[in-house]
Parts: sequence; structure tokens; C-alpha cells
Amino acid sequence: MKKPNSIAQLETAELVVPGFRASGISCGIKDKGKKDLALILSDVEAEAAGVFTTNRVKAAPVLLDMERIAGGKARGVVVNSGNANACTGRKGSRDSLRTATLVEKALGIKKGDILVCSTGVIGVPLPVKKIEANIPGLVKKLAPEGLKEAASAILTTDAFPKTFCAKKTIGGRPVTIAGIAKGAGMIAPDMATMLAFFFTDACIKSGVLVKALREAVDATFNTIMVDNDTSTNDTVLAFANARSGCAEIKTRGSGYAAFTGLLKDAALNLAHMIVRDGEGATKFVEIDIRGARSVKEAQIAARTIAGSMLVKTAFFGGDPNWGRVIAAIGRAGITMDQNKVDIFFGPVPVVKRGLDAGNERRAARVLKKAEFTVRVDLNRGKGSARLWTSDLSYDYVRINSSYRS
Amino acid sequence: MKKPNSIAQLETAELVVPGFRASGISCGIKDKGKKDLALILSDVEAEAAGVFTTNRVKAAPVLLDMERIAGGKARGVVVNSGNANACTGRKGSRDSLRTATLVEKALGIKKGDILVCSTGVIGVPLPVKKIEANIPGLVKKLAPEGLKEAASAILTTDAFPKTFCAKKTIGGRPVTIAGIAKGAGMIAPDMATMLAFFFTDACIKSGVLVKALREAVDATFNTIMVDNDTSTNDTVLAFANARSGCAEIKTRGSGYAAFTGLLKDAALNLAHMIVRDGEGATKFVEIDIRGARSVKEAQIAARTIAGSMLVKTAFFGGDPNWGRVIAAIGRAGITMDQNKVDIFFGPVPVVKRGLDAGNERRAARVLKKAEFTVRVDLNRGKGSARLWTSDLSYDYVRINSSYRS
Repeated sequence: MKKPNSIAQLETAELVVPGFRASGISCGIKDKGKKDLALILSDVEAEAAGVFTTNRVKAAPVLLDMERIAGGKARGVVVNSGNANACTGRKGSRDSLRTATLVEKALGIKKGDILVCSTGVIGVPLPVKKIEANIPGLVKKLAPEGLKEAASAILTTDAFPKTFCAKKTIGGRPVTIAGIAKGAGMIAPDMATMLAFFFTDACIKSGVLVKALREAVDATFNTIMVDNDTSTNDTVLAFANARSGCAEIKTRGSGYAAFTGLLKDAALNLAHMIVRDGEGATKFVEIDIRGARSVKEAQIAARTIAGSMLVKTAFFGGDPNWGRVIAAIGRAGITMDQNKVDIFFGPVPVVKRGLDAGNERRAARVLKKAEFTVRVDLNRGKGSARLWTSDLSYDYVRINSSYRS
Repeated sequence: MKKPNSIAQLETAELVVPGFRASGISCGIKDKGKKDLALILSDVEAEAAGVFTTNRVKAAPVLLDMERIAGGKARGVVVNSGNANACTGRKGSRDSLRTATLVEKALGIKKGDILVCSTGVIGVPLPVKKIEANIPGLVKKLAPEGLKEAASAILTTDAFPKTFCAKKTIGGRPVTIAGIAKGAGMIAPDMATMLAFFFTDACIKSGVLVKALREAVDATFNTIMVDNDTSTNDTVLAFANARSGCAEIKTRGSGYAAFTGLLKDAALNLAHMIVRDGEGATKFVEIDIRGARSVKEAQIAARTIAGSMLVKTAFFGGDPNWGRVIAAIGRAGITMDQNKVDIFFGPVPVVKRGLDAGNERRAARVLKKAEFTVRVDLNRGKGSARLWTSDLSYDYVRINSSYRS
């Protein structure tokens, strides 16, 4: 399971976006010289958009970025891994601000133009001196092909870096989008979970970019589930520097759908990579809910199934135990009639109108596979939703129960 | 962990309640001659009360009991383990009714006076013939001291039977209450989860008994959590036959508090036994939330912490990873200010006003114990709640991922 797998049918591209440079180095927060500091910079001021964790406990860099991104413009983002700078009080806020300021000074750019992200262990003061000492080296290494290095430097317990790049003609020009992400569940020793950054040379104003980003996040990162937990640091940022020279993408123009489609594809690819890299994951499972009274109810059903420890252990064991699926739906708090429910494991019907369809052996063969779909038709309406999840294995317990040291 | 542990400071008693007889035998639903059929009967018509699963998918016996108990009277309950008779359609309903009717006929009692419970694998037709053939034997074995046999016959993957009995003077007479329960999480191969039955010789009308039972269940069975799942078959029943000759317990009399206290003690003892018998459980953890804006918000916080796979794996590993606790509270959707939160592991403060209290080594010693309390003070109000839970271990995964066979 520990391999990326691209799903989009787009023209894939080298991980380079016109007008963006990036770098990733080791500054000593992580052991053994692992990369832990990244910088991605637009040559010109870019339109910027962000989506942040809904957790009420927010890390210092999240609070800083939420404030800064309100202006809709930024030059780039500096990211450290190995320390989340969360639950670190006023010192934490000063440390995030200091990190940004140091980068701005080193680059000679305007105060407030750099965003900050941190990921790693929480409750431990950020070793800001280590960052400070390495900013000159970080800036020096900035290069158009540096996104790959940056993608490595933002990882924590991820098994592989997550990158995606594609091109598409929008507004008369080839527009490039690149995305990098980290995440493999809410993992000890850190609260790290998910960070994702998108860089594009599209011409799009911040307000429109915010809308497109939110749509893309809802359809992708918000439809994956490794465990139920969300973190203090989850952040998705998008930067657009207009270098493609494409016609400006506006909410009402034809370019909007094309751009949002491109952004969604990039986000979905990264989201699936996060599930595939899920802690201890041995299966990649699509939950496909149909016939709900509303999309909302379909989403709730999908999340309840994907969040059930019993369902996830059955996936791990390859046990076509549909009783756990129907019981999860039953407690989801949605409108349902058990006598109308159909369930399929892959193409195999296992429940027809609430009753066992008698295909256990065939269903067991589906669940032995590394990838399969669980489809539920509630036969109550037209609401549907899809969600991607992983199983719950011994390794999940091993990874998350080992003492932080 | 696989041992019961009584917590009440009551006069404990032999598992016998005046005017009740019980039996438990093997009828061949389970393998290897394991007991799988129980009957508990009041000598006279008893006042009866029930609390049933909130899962929208309800097993046939649950639907039958909900209908029957509306009348407020019953003579007893017949219980089979090894088959849940859930998701079995119209045949399932006929089978539950048939089981009750067979017992009523064998006893020569009124139609509608016997309740039915089933627990075990779902989606498989109830082998009602096996039950039918063994009802004469079941009835023949009825005896005042038979509750112990009945307690064994209702188990599925439980490691030990769960029984409790106590006496207390109420309304001028010694009143006895006995309880038996089964449950160890939502377990493969079944959806079994929780059944509990209480038998008392108190004099109390059904309407008052319903109120007392609901209070007791809310304070006990609804405050434990092994995993997040609820089942299709969860049922709690109480029977009161007035044999003690105590003054009638009414909602406004002094006897009500005394009786409800006794019922709560019995229920809490059984509830804790279920947690201790939690699938793969190695720890028994109390979550104690204080200072919430309301009791409801305190309960939500407690449930979110206890339901977090990350928190539960940290308990298993003995890792005082308070970041996972505060992040769980943060996503619980309650009012909170991260800078006001205090967290204690046992007596050791680990978070003071949202910041690390620097006691990791002492806290780690607490988490190595088999039992401890995680106390969170939100410092926002006066709402508090307690909840009991277990950890998430390799054995949980092993038990729940093994194929049903």
C-alpha cells in the first residue's frame, strides 16, 4: 500500500510551475539530518487562498496565516516539520511571526507576505534558533525545480512524498498547477495530519481562488478518512501568480469550471495518496452511498461507516461482515428504512432489501483485494456521496501506541 | 483485565431474588455444548420496563419487546445467544414471536407475557427448531438460584459472566435487586454488544420503573464506551414483582431516590464489568470532564475523547500524549478556549491553561497502570460528566478482524 497512485487522466507534468521557486533542507529539528524546512516562493506577489482546520485548538502558525491571508495576497510559505508549534502559548505565536519575519528579511520582501506552517510534535516550543540559522541556506537553494525537495521537507511519518502536477488549457493558455501534501492520519509523535499546498500560474483573483479552493477541498480532502481525528495544524493553501498569461478566471466565466476541475483533480490525487499512506493501511476502500434523502445524509452515512472501528477491522480481516456496515448506518442518525437497504462489496450484492443476499464467498474474494468499493443504496432519495478510507490494522495500533521517543 | 470488579459499597447478596426463577441451558445454536438459551421468570406478573437500542436497524426481538412492554407488565424473558435474529425480515419477526409463544405455552401462561432477546451473528435465520426442542428442558430447570446459569447462557464473546446483586431497606423492607448483563463491544462474529436484565422484589408500578430505569441507564450504560458502535439488539429490561412487601415506590416518595440509587449501583457495576471485558482491553480508564458550559457539552467532550482511536492507542502504549486529548476536545464541537484547558492524568497535571505542565515522566507512570483517570477541566462553566472506557490494543484488531467461522 505504501506507494502513490495517480488517478487523474490529465497531462502530467514535471513538478515545476512558471514563476515559482522552492527549496527543502535540514535545519536540525528532526534527527539524522532529515529534511525539515521548506520554502516555496512566487517571483511576484501571488493571489492567495487558505482553508484551515476546524479544530477549536489551533496551532500558532494557523492563527497567523488566518490573519495574513485575509488580505488575499502572499509571496509564499515557509514550512517546518518535526514540531507543530501547537499548544505553545504566546511564545508559540512569537515564534511563528519570527519565522515569517526572518524569511521576509532574508528575501528583502514586504512584511506580511510570507505564510507559515508547522507540523510535528505538539506542546513543545519551536526551536526557532535552528530555523533562524538555516534560513540563509534555505533561501540560497530556491530553484524552479525545488518543489520536490520542499515536498520531502514537509513530511513527518509519511512513507512517501505526495506531489502532483498537471497542465490544462484555460483561458487560451496552458495553465500549470502543482500540489504537494503531507499526511498519513493523526500520528504519534505528532498531531501533524494534513498540509497541502497548490501553486499555479493561472490568472485568478483571491476571492475566486478561495471559492475554487473550498470547492476542491470539500470534494477531496474532506472526503477521506484514515481515523476520525482532525488536527490542530491542518492547512491547505493555494497561490496563483498569473504567469501563464491566461484570461482572468472569474466565477461566472467558462474558465472557472475548467480551473476548479484542474484544482480538484490535483487535490483528489493528493487526497488519495494520503489514504494510501494511511497509518498501517493495507486496503484502499471507496465508500459510495446512493439513494439518501440528501447529499448531507449520504455524507454522514459514508463518514459513519468509514469511521467505524468494527468496519475497518473487518476490512483488514477481509471479512464481508455487512452487519457492521448496516449497523453503522443505523446509528448514523439519518433517515433510513432497513428493509430498503442494498449493499454491494465490489460488484457483489451482499444485502438486498435489508436481507442477506447469500453471496458471502464471492464477497470475501472482493474484500481480499487491496482496493475495493463498498456501495450502499438506501433507496430513499437522490442524495449520494463518495468517501475514501483505509482499514484498521495491527500496524495502526503499533504506530500509534509506540511511545514518542 | 479479564475479571469483574465490584465497585458498590452495598450489602452484596446471593444471586437470588424472591419470586424469580431462572435457568440457562445449551440448545445447540453455539458450538461445543456452550449454554445459549436462558429463561428468567417471575412467579407472578411483574411490572416491566425496557430501554432499547437507538440504532435505526432493530432486530426482530427488539421490535417485539417494544410492542409488548408498552403494556407495562410481563412474566419474564427468554434469551438466546449465538444468533441476533437481526436483518432477518418477516421470518425473523415470526421466529421471535414463535419463541415467546412456545415458552408461554410450556409455562401455561398468558399470551404476550414473555419478552424475547437475541444476541449473536446477524443476517442468519434463527434456528427456531433448536429452541423449540429445548424449551421443555429450559422450563424444567427453572430454579431460584438459576440466575447464574442464565447469566452464562446470554454471553457471546464475553470473557466472564456479569452479575450483581444487592439488598437495601426501602419502604420499610429489605429490597433485593439482581442484574445480569452481557457485552464486550461490538464483536465479530456478532453484533451482540449489550443486554442487561434487572430483577427486583420492590413494589413499583411500571411507569415509575421506566423512569428509574431510564435514569439508571443514562448514568451508567450510556456512559461507557468500548468502541463507537451501537448494535441492532441492545436491550435493558427491568422486572419488579412486589414480593418484598415494601411500601409502593412512587416518583414523589422518599423510596424513589433509594430505589433508583440501588438500580444505578447495580447498573454501574455491570457497566464497568462490560468495559473491563472490552474486546482486547488492557486498561480501564475514567474520563472526567469538568468546567464545561453544560452537562451535555461535558458528555460530548468525554465521548469524543473516549472514541478517539488515537487517544485509545496512546492509552494502550502508556504514552501520556495529552496533545491527542486536547485535539479530540477541539474537534468535539463544544465551546472551549484552548488557553483555559487543564488536563490531569491521574493526580498529575499535564496541561495547565493550555500549556505543557512539564510532568511527562510522572504522567507516564500513571498511564502504565491498569486503571487511571483522565481529568479535563475546561474552566468555562459548571457542566461535568464522567465516562468509562478501555484502550485500543492489538487484541481488539485481532478479535475484530478474524473471519467469522
